[in-house]
Amino acid sequence: MLLDTIEQANDIKKIKKEELGELAQEIRDFLIQGISVTGGHLGSNLGVVELTMALHLVLNLPEDKIIWDVGHQSYTHKILTGRKDGFESLRQFRGLSGFPKRKESDCDAFETGHSSTSVSAGLGLVKARDINGGKNTIVSVIGDGSLTGGMAYEALNNASKLETNFIIVLNDNNMSISENVGGVSQYLNYIRTATGYLDLKKGIYNALHGTKRGKGTINTLRRAKSSFKQLVIPGMFFEDMGVTYLGPVDGHDIGSMTAVFNAAKRVKGPVLVHVLTQKGRGFAPAERHPARFHGTEPFDIETGIPSHPRTVANYTDIFSTVMCKLGQRDDKIVAVTAAMPDGTGLKRFHNMYPNRFFDVGIAEEHAVTFAAGLAVGGMKPIVAVYSSFLQRAYDQILHDVCLQNLPVVFAVDRAGLVGSDGETHQGIFDLTYLTGIPNMHVCAPKNKWELSDMLKFAVGLGRPVAVRYPRGTAYAGLQEYREPIALGKAEWIYREGEIALFALGSMVKTALDVRQALLEQGRRVSLVNARFAKPIDEEAVLEACAEHKLLVTMEENVFCGGFGEKVLDLVNRKGMHCRVMNICIPDAYVEHGNVELLKKKVGIDGESIVEKIQEWCLGEAGAE
Amino acid sequence: MLLDTIEQANDIKKIKKEELGELAQEIRDFLIQGISVTGGHLGSNLGVVELTMALHLVLNLPEDKIIWDVGHQSYTHKILTGRKDGFESLRQFRGLSGFPKRKESDCDAFETGHSSTSVSAGLGLVKARDINGGKNTIVSVIGDGSLTGGMAYEALNNASKLETNFIIVLNDNNMSISENVGGVSQYLNYIRTATGYLDLKKGIYNALHGTKRGKGTINTLRRAKSSFKQLVIPGMFFEDMGVTYLGPVDGHDIGSMTAVFNAAKRVKGPVLVHVLTQKGRGFAPAERHPARFHGTEPFDIETGIPSHPRTVANYTDIFSTVMCKLGQRDDKIVAVTAAMPDGTGLKRFHNMYPNRFFDVGIAEEHAVTFAAGLAVGGMKPIVAVYSSFLQRAYDQILHDVCLQNLPVVFAVDRAGLVGSDGETHQGIFDLTYLTGIPNMHVCAPKNKWELSDMLKFAVGLGRPVAVRYPRGTAYAGLQEYREPIALGKAEWIYREGEIALFALGSMVKTALDVRQALLEQGRRVSLVNARFAKPIDEEAVLEACAEHKLLVTMEENVFCGGFGEKVLDLVNRKGMHCRVMNICIPDAYVEHGNVELLKKKVGIDGESIVEKIQEWCLGEAGAE
Repeated sequence: MLLDTIEQANDIKKIKKEELGELAQEIRDFLIQGISVTGGHLGSNLGVVELTMALHLVLNLPEDKIIWDVGHQSYTHKILTGRKDGFESLRQFRGLSGFPKRKESDCDAFETGHSSTSVSAGLGLVKARDINGGKNTIVSVIGDGSLTGGMAYEALNNASKLETNFIIVLNDNNMSISENVGGVSQYLNYIRTATGYLDLKKGIYNALHGTKRGKGTINTLRRAKSSFKQLVIPGMFFEDMGVTYLGPVDGHDIGSMTAVFNAAKRVKGPVLVHVLTQKGRGFAPAERHPARFHGTEPFDIETGIPSHPRTVANYTDIFSTVMCKLGQRDDKIVAVTAAMPDGTGLKRFHNMYPNRFFDVGIAEEHAVTFAAGLAVGGMKPIVAVYSSFLQRAYDQILHDVCLQNLPVVFAVDRAGLVGSDGETHQGIFDLTYLTGIPNMHVCAPKNKWELSDMLKFAVGLGRPVAVRYPRGTAYAGLQEYREPIALGKAEWIYREGEIALFALGSMVKTALDVRQALLEQGRRVSLVNARFAKPIDEEAVLEACAEHKLLVTMEENVFCGGFGEKVLDLVNRKGMHCRVMNICIPDAYVEHGNVELLKKKVGIDGESIVEKIQEWCLGEAGAE
Repeated sequence: MLLDTIEQANDIKKIKKEELGELAQEIRDFLIQGISVTGGHLGSNLGVVELTMALHLVLNLPEDKIIWDVGHQSYTHKILTGRKDGFESLRQFRGLSGFPKRKESDCDAFETGHSSTSVSAGLGLVKARDINGGKNTIVSVIGDGSLTGGMAYEALNNASKLETNFIIVLNDNNMSISENVGGVSQYLNYIRTATGYLDLKKGIYNALHGTKRGKGTINTLRRAKSSFKQLVIPGMFFEDMGVTYLGPVDGHDIGSMTAVFNAAKRVKGPVLVHVLTQKGRGFAPAERHPARFHGTEPFDIETGIPSHPRTVANYTDIFSTVMCKLGQRDDKIVAVTAAMPDGTGLKRFHNMYPNRFFDVGIAEEHAVTFAAGLAVGGMKPIVAVYSSFLQRAYDQILHDVCLQNLPVVFAVDRAGLVGSDGETHQGIFDLTYLTGIPNMHVCAPKNKWELSDMLKFAVGLGRPVAVRYPRGTAYAGLQEYREPIALGKAEWIYREGEIALFALGSMVKTALDVRQALLEQGRRVSLVNARFAKPIDEEAVLEACAEHKLLVTMEENVFCGGFGEKVLDLVNRKGMHCRVMNICIPDAYVEHGNVELLKKKVGIDGESIVEKIQEWCLGEAGAE
């Protein structure tokens, strides 16, 4: 195997030119085989096998730097930098990360996870290099999907004045996670399909490959303020922004790419290389269903069918069903997603009500202010976003939605620990940034029926509301507890106590276990389904204070600005004598791994909570 | 006076065409006169007098909607919609807001304050209109400065597919608050100076004014995939994004603008009208110094000189001086601003170290990730941003800086109540969103010397730090208290108590007054300068708990996620018996007005705090 000879960065340069195709095939087979077992991002990685190889052939790592936008396409890069053996533990606790990590390798120049950051980070590295008098090459690889994010334009706008080299590789597969949207996408499509494609490529190569005349020609054309420019130079859009455009080039042809990358290295200024790739390349099921194989669970290689098909509904499924019902009942209901029609479960709503569905691209900021505009216009928008991605629209929620007290509903999926995607995707800050905003309301359901009830409640409230719910299987217990949702009202499940558990959302299920364990030790334990993190149910808290010795809050969020903080504040303000214990996620980023393991690690699993309460009881007994 | 006949929306339509110039002059005189007394945004408003008049002539308010990006240019709009009399109380407590406010007038369609939101909001209104079958016209007015913000591109990208009318007016004055930056700005400049300007305008008018032949010509040109397009149609950049481009048109020629706006209303799809305006138009000092007259204090009309020149330094001045010293001492120090070289005080640093200064435009997201890149490249970046604008980079601070634990210093100016700019500009959330982020450190100086010491400390820490300081005069008391800054250590000022005041930053000065008043009532009062909101000084808090009956935290931030929360949490976790009282800003937006009045209103002025403490003491005495 050629792959066995790749043990560290730059080993690829020892492979003979004519064997590179074979190596690409081996990498592809390795990825398909590995991901079919561990799960992971398949489509994006299969798309950039040759692109990554070409970059590694042209660059000298780790001196030269590659910044992978989002970073879920960095698997081949990991393989080529000595991390092949780590793939057995991919995305598992303490195993190889699915994203670039500086602690894994000095070839990982910058950590990513969210979209559209790579050009900004790359430009920072470029400026630092220039100030330090360095000569290394810096490359930011960004997908066409990430170009729907505004931050990329802020960066391009700033790159334009650069007088030293900076290579931006536009990895254009004509997809975000799902289908791509908007004007820029159409524009790229036009370039892709332009008839002059091959000739253009040749012309640009000649010009840049050093013949004086070629250079002259291209420069004259560039300087010309006018005609023919658009015809001769595709990518005028980028040139208008001050960025030299090269391409498009076939992203599965290593020879062409190394030639263009070498040419790009000689440009004194920012240069964008437009590379055309195919998502899922080389694996038929992924080529056919790129969205489904963007991030995949383990699957059968022959058929592409999941190895462990899901048999129970997750919260996203419930959301999906409720949205369709709500859409039918009220024609003011509109839905907004930022490039996640599949991930958020809005696809069915889209199919049923295409005119009331908006996929705005990877553009959370726009998504939220656009929803504010819809609300002012009389609509009832529901913005479905993952908790960690909504962080990007913090100012828009605060400034455009809540300041005007507009009826926008946020369906905050992936709230709490998400597992294998790790630090950048854990939804453990949304209670902090959302409940700190005036006029905002935040609730979280204990089970699948409550998610449905809360969404209906939220749409009817006529004010800003966020409903947060976790990744994964929707809890189907406690069906018999279905008190109607009322603003800021909690739900007593058990009321018999010495110790009162105030659990929010996903923690109600954990609280049942905690209660059971404590009962077995002879404790009397009440359980309150908190429902609202803002406003909290003051009456329930104060009653619980009067009736219990210890009040335990439980949430999947950091303490700062969370649910427990609010309970503690109330107890303190009212001068109650009940003690408060806050169970929450510690003040640290949480790595990737199985969610149950992670909960244990951060101390919010049932066992850890029981231990903490026991410890408190012992201390209490000692003090008496 | 013509102006006296304008009592409500659409009254302008009764003015004779030949008198519109006179009305413009009256409005201009009114604005200069008024703002010279009250202060306010002068330059931006003088620039859009005719533009606003033209829009009001063409539109039918309030059915039609205008969304003013940022909104500080809406004064003429206010005058034309019956709010002329309110200008005497402009930006004063309970007076006219300096920004659009829906409660002021049904002609204010959407509230703004931060940059680059108007196209998103406008698109939302457009989609709502279309779903509801409405026919009204929706106009978003956006400045060329706001086009450096990525959100505007997210919106343009989404507007492109629109098949109904949506007018975007690009108010191009070739300025942000200060000079404009980047590729797009250069591109607009090229359009402005293109030789074919007049001919083009004429050509486009003809084409759009209804002759069949003209329309045909322009359509043929638009459809041509090629040559001459760039020559004939300026704004290909926008056309590439799928937005029809009209212009450029003289923004001080009402006749030309009404003609183009009427043409724009007939376009089936998104249309961008490029209007060239001059910031400060008609007031010589503002034309000469547009940055200084962007937002101004009261001034002398003859000379343009401030009526009450500042004689004492404010915190921004201190920051400015320290930055120059730091820059001299360490050539790794680099400074980043988002379009605020003047406002943040970085202009002197820029003059001294031009290669280590970066103005990235109104692009806070890029600013922060760019700084992360600089830090990875070995630099020591200081990002100077106003507290409320930094909200926009929350995800970048969390995801790009703190996750990688990078040595980026945030100089958070305008933290706390800012006064006359109101709701959108109050810096009362930064402790919440910053201290909730793992690896972040947050401190706030009690006086001018401490700001200097903290900045030096921050640069030396080698990890993410935010130094927050308020708008206005730098406190020059307590000079004798200058213990060296140590991470997470507070400073005892007085230690003699029954009651301990833990004050953060600006509140130390207030705490001195509170202490004095309580001393006069025979109380013993300690005072701790908290210095750090994260990490808090646990030792000082626990010692204070042991020695005092009541611990009072004082901060200019909401409670959620703030400094007081952390003190309360510690006291609770350690099971201390000391009582905690948290003085902070209530959970509500704070309107505009004089800062001292606002502090009283929200209950964080000395008098209010003394009252609360007295009340507690009485309750305590009663309980004994």
